[in-house]
Amino acid sequence: MANLIAGNAVIGQSGGPTAVINQSLVGVVEGLREHGAGEGGTIRKILGMRHGVRGLIEDQLIDLSAMETERLERIARTPSAALGSTRDKPDAAYCERIFEACRRHDIRYFFYIGGNDSSDTCRIVNELSRQAGYELRCFHVPKTVDNDLVGSDHTPGWPSAARFVAKACMADFMDNISLPGIKINVIMGRHAGFLTAASALARRTDRARSTDGPQLIYLPEVPFDLEQFVHDVATVFDEKGRCHVAVSEGIQDKDGNAIGAMLIQGEVDAHGNVQLSGSGALGDQLAGLLKAKLTPEGGKPPRVRADTFGYIQRCFPDQSEIDMREARGVGRFAARLAVSGDLDGSVAIVRTSTPGPGEAYASEYRRIELSDVAAKTRHMPEEFIDGTNDVTRAFIDYARPLVGDLPQFERL
Amino acid sequence: MANLIAGNAVIGQSGGPTAVINQSLVGVVEGLREHGAGEGGTIRKILGMRHGVRGLIEDQLIDLSAMETERLERIARTPSAALGSTRDKPDAAYCERIFEACRRHDIRYFFYIGGNDSSDTCRIVNELSRQAGYELRCFHVPKTVDNDLVGSDHTPGWPSAARFVAKACMADFMDNISLPGIKINVIMGRHAGFLTAASALARRTDRARSTDGPQLIYLPEVPFDLEQFVHDVATVFDEKGRCHVAVSEGIQDKDGNAIGAMLIQGEVDAHGNVQLSGSGALGDQLAGLLKAKLTPEGGKPPRVRADTFGYIQRCFPDQSEIDMREARGVGRFAARLAVSGDLDGSVAIVRTSTPGPGEAYASEYRRIELSDVAAKTRHMPEEFIDGTNDVTRAFIDYARPLVGDLPQFERL
Repeated sequence: MANLIAGNAVIGQSGGPTAVINQSLVGVVEGLREHGAGEGGTIRKILGMRHGVRGLIEDQLIDLSAMETERLERIARTPSAALGSTRDKPDAAYCERIFEACRRHDIRYFFYIGGNDSSDTCRIVNELSRQAGYELRCFHVPKTVDNDLVGSDHTPGWPSAARFVAKACMADFMDNISLPGIKINVIMGRHAGFLTAASALARRTDRARSTDGPQLIYLPEVPFDLEQFVHDVATVFDEKGRCHVAVSEGIQDKDGNAIGAMLIQGEVDAHGNVQLSGSGALGDQLAGLLKAKLTPEGGKPPRVRADTFGYIQRCFPDQSEIDMREARGVGRFAARLAVSGDLDGSVAIVRTSTPGPGEAYASEYRRIELSDVAAKTRHMPEEFIDGTNDVTRAFIDYARPLVGDLPQFERL
Repeated sequence: MANLIAGNAVIGQSGGPTAVINQSLVGVVEGLREHGAGEGGTIRKILGMRHGVRGLIEDQLIDLSAMETERLERIARTPSAALGSTRDKPDAAYCERIFEACRRHDIRYFFYIGGNDSSDTCRIVNELSRQAGYELRCFHVPKTVDNDLVGSDHTPGWPSAARFVAKACMADFMDNISLPGIKINVIMGRHAGFLTAASALARRTDRARSTDGPQLIYLPEVPFDLEQFVHDVATVFDEKGRCHVAVSEGIQDKDGNAIGAMLIQGEVDAHGNVQLSGSGALGDQLAGLLKAKLTPEGGKPPRVRADTFGYIQRCFPDQSEIDMREARGVGRFAARLAVSGDLDGSVAIVRTSTPGPGEAYASEYRRIELSDVAAKTRHMPEEFIDGTNDVTRAFIDYARPLVGDLPQFERL
């Protein structure tokens, strides 16, 4: 074991909560305990920031050092951020305050669980501590339902959200067969389409999208054209008398304008910010458009419905087993790095098996540089995208093992 | 066993699908088989209507007689209506066509799984057959996520939907604690508040709504007042810096006007019918109202989000065990009545235990008259409603055993 500076450790959670972010919190605590944290050890106290770095700079800290294992286990299995989260994106001055708070509380180990903004916070705080000659070990622990962190095969939080999306789309597709019509499901992911793409897992593996839905999947990575959209839906609807569609909340046109913001501009200006999650506006506008365009002359409009999956998709308590294990694992791994001589870093999940049928899933953790993750966004790679409205077999092989067992449905 | 007229049996599914309506379909098939259906028996063929009575009058029938048990079991566990459903509400002339189709196909046993409209169809078809002196045994098998059938303790379909609502609200409340703000969840139930009321199961049993959400629950049975709503939310928000709200899609003002239709009138007129499910409009309008009213002068609007649970709540594949068992049971019981001499009827679920902590849940099935169920709507009884924005302990004791085990969450 490396020479460790004695002091306290602090852990924070940032950004949108997930169904497994508390696994990572508990993983860090466990990892620190395994390496001698506690009364009289090198790592003295294990502190939690209330609502992320906002709580740290305001001295709102909670002592997790003595928390019993059973309670930690229950917290690990609880969705949402148990410490509280924040949307603050610290700039240099804010990071200075974070660093000062670390000094004030004798913190030598800093763990921040979050997305690419959180890794950037770690990076800046780490630089400040180096400049000041104050040894502060800064580790980013990855989390995001968007799966948009670079350097990882996938990110904790996404498999569980993908599981919810797959199960919801499976069942909703059956509902759509029972009472036919056009059904749009709007799915989270402002810049990356991974979560919307998970709707394809609702199809039986051996079937084409002609028999199983969703028949159309629209990702933010592929320029969205309203006329083409109407044409795509009309084609499926004409053939089948129904159509099941998955749409990312982040779809944008060829010039990068968000379709949601364009369609709901009028209403949004009246009430405040452009906001995609926590609103059904995009789905309702697309449904209205389809009704208007697909009503036969003198005839009745088709039955068109839109659901927006909303916050449930990131917090529903039906976590993927692999996701729970890995979310815990990245936290424990970060703690291990910190007490083994590394001064900073993030953790990547590396898949060690080849995606494909019959292949047992395996992965391992690796340290990567904070600057490799910080403030970067990963998008769906080309090999996962099929044309303008579908995903490929390669994506399904990639995603399938991560979400765990799905129910088996039967049709007449 | 009574003297049975030889002939075919037909089964149909009607109205909105549920997560357990296929259990009832399989229950009827099982019940008929147990009593001698099949080749050479009194009940010759077991037929399924494609998309309810619409399929029957159009001779779209499927022969279920020889279907293997394993496949039936898989169908039973699949959400949605496996035979297909319909929204048709037959009038007298339509029922005449149904009766004619029964004669044409030598049908002597008629089972219709659905809500109060379906029991009314059974009632009319049964009268027509009596008038014609054609022995046709007509049975209604109860189903609805709204829980609004009279004569029953509860209705198959509702416990599973209530389970989804409870779990979604549990997790979403934790999300709301993590990233505070005002969160509105819009829940199904146009005339009856039972499903919205199930959001109260998200609270820990031993805690008041001051510690656990949702803090406010709005039912269609209680006149909704927009000013009072804003005041209620502001009071909780001022105290806690957050507020978690469950709203029925069917809320109406003191004169019985639907709030959803009133708020979204402009948009709805442009596209067609007033439509509550499959749209986020009510939630978005309520959220917009709160933002506008609760923005401090010269300040930032509060964070307000609205999710509409949508069709997922009636089909999510995480059924309540009791609901699966009872949905199967009411189907089997209806078949048993039909082959035991009864000419018509519906099936009620009667609770045989007293609701309350520590009481093991028990129920039994009873035959009731079609006219006792037909075209009537049950509402939340007064003893389940607490003031203008909550449910009582009696409701929670009533609902809790039906939804099955809920996850245990832990907080810091």
